[in-house]
Amino acid sequence: MKKVINAPQNVVSEMLQGMVLAFPEYVRKIDSADVIVRAKPKTGKVALISGGGSGHEPSHAGFVGCGMLDAGVCGAVFTSPTPDAVFEAIKAVKTDEGVLLIIKNYTGDVMNFEMAMEMAEAEGIKVDKVVIDDDVAVQNSTWTVGRRGIAGTVLLHKIAGAKAETGASLADVKAVAEKVVANVRSMGMALTPCIIPEAGKPGFELAENEMEVGLGIHGEPGVRRDTIKPADAIVDELMAKIMADMPVDGQEVAVMVNGLGSTPLMELFIVNKRVNEILTGKGVKIYKTFVGEYMTAIEMAGFSISVLKLDAELKTLLDAQADTPAYKS
Amino acid sequence: MKKVINAPQNVVSEMLQGMVLAFPEYVRKIDSADVIVRAKPKTGKVALISGGGSGHEPSHAGFVGCGMLDAGVCGAVFTSPTPDAVFEAIKAVKTDEGVLLIIKNYTGDVMNFEMAMEMAEAEGIKVDKVVIDDDVAVQNSTWTVGRRGIAGTVLLHKIAGAKAETGASLADVKAVAEKVVANVRSMGMALTPCIIPEAGKPGFELAENEMEVGLGIHGEPGVRRDTIKPADAIVDELMAKIMADMPVDGQEVAVMVNGLGSTPLMELFIVNKRVNEILTGKGVKIYKTFVGEYMTAIEMAGFSISVLKLDAELKTLLDAQADTPAYKS
Repeated sequence: MKKVINAPQNVVSEMLQGMVLAFPEYVRKIDSADVIVRAKPKTGKVALISGGGSGHEPSHAGFVGCGMLDAGVCGAVFTSPTPDAVFEAIKAVKTDEGVLLIIKNYTGDVMNFEMAMEMAEAEGIKVDKVVIDDDVAVQNSTWTVGRRGIAGTVLLHKIAGAKAETGASLADVKAVAEKVVANVRSMGMALTPCIIPEAGKPGFELAENEMEVGLGIHGEPGVRRDTIKPADAIVDELMAKIMADMPVDGQEVAVMVNGLGSTPLMELFIVNKRVNEILTGKGVKIYKTFVGEYMTAIEMAGFSISVLKLDAELKTLLDAQADTPAYKS
Repeated sequence: MKKVINAPQNVVSEMLQGMVLAFPEYVRKIDSADVIVRAKPKTGKVALISGGGSGHEPSHAGFVGCGMLDAGVCGAVFTSPTPDAVFEAIKAVKTDEGVLLIIKNYTGDVMNFEMAMEMAEAEGIKVDKVVIDDDVAVQNSTWTVGRRGIAGTVLLHKIAGAKAETGASLADVKAVAEKVVANVRSMGMALTPCIIPEAGKPGFELAENEMEVGLGIHGEPGVRRDTIKPADAIVDELMAKIMADMPVDGQEVAVMVNGLGSTPLMELFIVNKRVNEILTGKGVKIYKTFVGEYMTAIEMAGFSISVLKLDAELKTLLDAQADTPAYKS
């Protein structure tokens, strides 16, 4: 295991310290749990909380800030945060307008965030949730009943965050969040596994000439294992699956080409070239493109593509100001 | 070689197409060379041009935009752009106020940018240069006479870019650029090599338990090869070398913890924690911290630390607005 770390059991704690020290004007950690909140809390708006296992940085804590999240709950690597940690986050950022939990669809995350929701409701806190399941690769996986939530989650953070910042009601923020969930699809692939620090070895193996199509962000199995194909052929397959699930012909969309950790920008841009060709070939107008690392799997090599169908409201919210450590617009 | 590419010989061309398609509101490619320029050129200011071999993305083309560069010249992977390409960039963005070339100190880059400068001067174009050599690891290397230019270059882009945007004269922009060069020091380390697509195999080998301290961004040898140490011990060594070269006790600085390609944000934050502890322990005030991938070596695992001593002018310029694909402030 080649990593720049001190002790495997301390990676999350030291990462969060290093993050807060880097961006004190943006974020702080609460004392009672591994929860990152805004340095300058904002009231008079719905509070947005997301989170999950660590290892997906900059998701989610990197998106805490104006126009996106109010809190990011950080579990152990690839491990759902406890209900207690999520409840601490809720208590830390709750407002009179309410709290919306943004949950990626993994069995552990959904269970623990829902338990925290019940704990909060028992204390009279107004709280609701939205579950995102954008990954079209597989219907069920090792870690999930139903589809998984992957990089489309970041587009959800951006749009729901912008809506919340306008002072919209909890019902209205939830409605736009559900509109994003209904209109975003993603799919990924990987060339290499990644290593959970405390495990010390890869969760699976891929031969030098192999790739895994449709793999999840924790290394869960995908659609199939295959020999490595040229970038264009890989993109063609992922886009075909995305567009079969959600036809986009003649529509307007946002595109996210997301690196999983060790895939260079060079390759992500080569992927984006093909994504752009495919979509424009179908009369799709690409309103905005994101290329970079948004939802990673530690140092996994690979990428995902997300496509979000837009309407006038979503475009406005996508463009709205955001100022967070990992995303500014 | 596990890469998401089509043909090795096309990576730069396809990358630039994918980049322009992703950010058409920011950048375009000129027809005559692999040069990225602002989509909305700005006159009435000194034009800043940087560049070098490709493989360091987002450097340099990702920093083309308001408040940073006017053009990024993109050579083949790890290969200096030709004098003709640099000359095309100069012709594309030249203004009456003049052109400043920002050159990383590698023998090929310096030679080719200087030849382009002579070609431009022969046509009556006002042009000057600054050479950055922030890497304190080694005095001379395979590719360089004198110190190498590495991630400190991005801080130079930011500050000189902000100065140029104010409408300052060529002499004044050059003066502030030289102030940055005089006050920035960097050093890196690597855990793995990277693979130039057309070579198809790593330029060097590191054993599973080995790291290279002081390695360059093209894989040039560093200070020494050693067994992997804990993050804190590695940071201690790099910071000792940086601070021995440029004492910073009691000063105010900016810090950049730069990933070389496949080192996750998790590890970069762990590094930043230690950098912060060391500096604050010496009474240094950290004005601003950058953590992320700014100057990469394709998919190399490793990182560099840069420290920039600040004064009032540099702080103002560091904070000034920038709006580019890869950096916004």
